[in-house]
Amino acid sequence: MDKRSIAIIGIGKIARDQHIPVIGKSDRFELAATVSQRGIAEASLPVFRSAAELYREMPEIDIVAICTPPGPRHLLVREALDAGKHVLMEKPPTQTLSEFEDLVRHGEARGLVLFQTWHSQYNDAVERTREILAEEGVRSVRIDWRESVRKWHPGQDWVWAPGGFGVCDPGINALSIFTRIMPMPVFVEHAQMAVPANRQTPVDVEIGFRTADAHGPALSAHFNWLEEDGEVWTIAIETGTGRQLSLERGGTVLKIDGETRVAAPSEEYERIYERFAELLDTGRSDVDGTPLRLLADAFMMAERVEAEPFDW
Amino acid sequence: MDKRSIAIIGIGKIARDQHIPVIGKSDRFELAATVSQRGIAEASLPVFRSAAELYREMPEIDIVAICTPPGPRHLLVREALDAGKHVLMEKPPTQTLSEFEDLVRHGEARGLVLFQTWHSQYNDAVERTREILAEEGVRSVRIDWRESVRKWHPGQDWVWAPGGFGVCDPGINALSIFTRIMPMPVFVEHAQMAVPANRQTPVDVEIGFRTADAHGPALSAHFNWLEEDGEVWTIAIETGTGRQLSLERGGTVLKIDGETRVAAPSEEYERIYERFAELLDTGRSDVDGTPLRLLADAFMMAERVEAEPFDW
Repeated sequence: MDKRSIAIIGIGKIARDQHIPVIGKSDRFELAATVSQRGIAEASLPVFRSAAELYREMPEIDIVAICTPPGPRHLLVREALDAGKHVLMEKPPTQTLSEFEDLVRHGEARGLVLFQTWHSQYNDAVERTREILAEEGVRSVRIDWRESVRKWHPGQDWVWAPGGFGVCDPGINALSIFTRIMPMPVFVEHAQMAVPANRQTPVDVEIGFRTADAHGPALSAHFNWLEEDGEVWTIAIETGTGRQLSLERGGTVLKIDGETRVAAPSEEYERIYERFAELLDTGRSDVDGTPLRLLADAFMMAERVEAEPFDW
Repeated sequence: MDKRSIAIIGIGKIARDQHIPVIGKSDRFELAATVSQRGIAEASLPVFRSAAELYREMPEIDIVAICTPPGPRHLLVREALDAGKHVLMEKPPTQTLSEFEDLVRHGEARGLVLFQTWHSQYNDAVERTREILAEEGVRSVRIDWRESVRKWHPGQDWVWAPGGFGVCDPGINALSIFTRIMPMPVFVEHAQMAVPANRQTPVDVEIGFRTADAHGPALSAHFNWLEEDGEVWTIAIETGTGRQLSLERGGTVLKIDGETRVAAPSEEYERIYERFAELLDTGRSDVDGTPLRLLADAFMMAERVEAEPFDW
C-alpha cells in the first residue's frame, strides 16, 4: 500500500519521542517535512519556519500532525483546515472548549478528517477494563496520578502560565482513561487545586466526581507533580461484583484481584497512527471533548489553596 | 386558549420578582403549585417540600420552571425529565458543562421540551444590535458590567463558594448578549480574576476575547460586583462601518451615535414565557451552552490575583 505523506508541525519532546520514530516505522505514513520555528532539521527532511510556508512550498502534503503546546493550536488547526489538510491533534486539544468546538465545526464544514488523540486510551488494558465495567458495573474508582514536572516538562514555563493546565496536563490523560472506561457520564462534584505561590496553575489537584445517581459509585482523583520517585499512574477500581481492578503504568497494565491479566508493551502512538490511517481511509473524524470538558468543570468548581513556590 | 398548568421549583428572589408575577398575567400559563424547601406558600397555591412530592400528588402538572440556585439544578432537572415533565431552567443552567450536556442529551432521549433561558437575550435592543452587526460587521466591543452584590444577592453566600461563579453570575448575562449579537465565534484569549482573600469566587473580572481572525475586532469585558452607585450594564460597540452603538441598561436600550433608537421597557420574562409556550406547542427544545462554555474557558485561562476580603 502506498504510504501517505505527512508533515509534523511543532518539533518538541513529544514529536521526537513518539511521532517521528512511530511514523518512521509505519507502513501507512511517511514523514515528508516538518515545521519548526527554530528551524531545526530532522534527518534530511525539508524544514519550514511556518505552516504557511509548508503549505505553499509542498502543497502535495495533505496531512499534518500538530504537536505544538496547546496555546497556538486553535489557529494552527484552523489554518491547516483552511488549507484543505487533514489534521491529527496532540492532547490536550486546545486551551479552551470554545476553541475545540470551533475546530470540530470547522472540520465538519470542510469535510476534512480531524483526529483528536488521547494517547492513554490506546491500550489493551484500558479497553479490557471498559468491557469489564460495562458488564459488572462499578462501585468505586480512585485515580492516583503522580509524576515529576521537572522530568516530564523540564524548563517548560508555559505549563505554569494561565491556560497551561499545570498538573492537569498529565492529569487529563487519567481523565481520558476515566471517561473511556466509565459506563455512565460523570460530573465534577468538588475540586481542590493547590497553586504554587509564584505560579498560576496547580501543582496538586484533588477532584471528587459523582454520577447522575445519588447512590452511585465513589469516584475521585488525585494529581501531583512533585513525585520524584518514579511515576505513579494508577487507577484502582472496585467493580459492581466486588472485583478489585488495578489499571497501572498509565493504562498499560491491568491486574484483577492482584493478578496481572494484561501487560502489553505501550504502543499508544503505533495505535494512534493505525487509527488515523483508518479514519483517512474512511473519511471520518474522531473528536471527543469529554476529558477537556471535565477539566474545565474542575477549574470552574475548584477551591484554591496556596502551595509552596515552585522553581525549576 | 386553555392555559397550561405549571409549577415553580425553588422560590427565591427571581421566582418572586419575575416568574410568579409574569405567569400571573400570562394567558398561556397558570401557576398550579410551588416547591419550596422552607414550605412557604404563595397565595393560595399548594406548596410541596420536594419535587418528588409534587410529582406524586399532582401528576397532571407536566411543566415545571426550575428557579433554584445552579448547585442542585442538574439533579432536579434530571428528576423532572425522568418524571416526564417539560422543563424551563433559569440561568446559569448548571454549575458545570458536563451537567449541561447531560441534560441536553437526557431531554432529547425522552422527547421532552427543555428550555434553557438567558433572560438578557429577550430584548428588542439586543435583537436590533444583532441585525446591525450581521450587516455592518464589528470593529470593537467593550462590555462594562458593574453592580452591587449586596443589593442583588443579599446574604447569598453560595455566590462566593466554589462553583458559585462570583461576579460571573451577573457577568454571564453580558456574555449571553455578547454571544447572541456577535456575527462570528469568540474565544477567551486571556482573563484576570480578582478573588477576595476570604472567598473563592471573583469579585472583579477582566476578559480579553479574540475571534478566529488574527486581525479581528478588539473585544473585552469587565465585570465588577462592588458598584454601589446604581448599575452599569453597558456594551459599547463600534461597527465595521464606524457607527458607535451603545447597548445600555442590560440590553434594553440601544443608542446609535448618541441617539436613542430602541428603548423598550424590559419584558424579558414575558418574552421568555411566550417563547416557552411556542416551544411547548411545537415540541422543540431550546438549549444554548455557549455563554456557559465561554465562562468555563475564562475560569480555565484566568490569572488570579487577590482582592480585599469581602464581608456583607
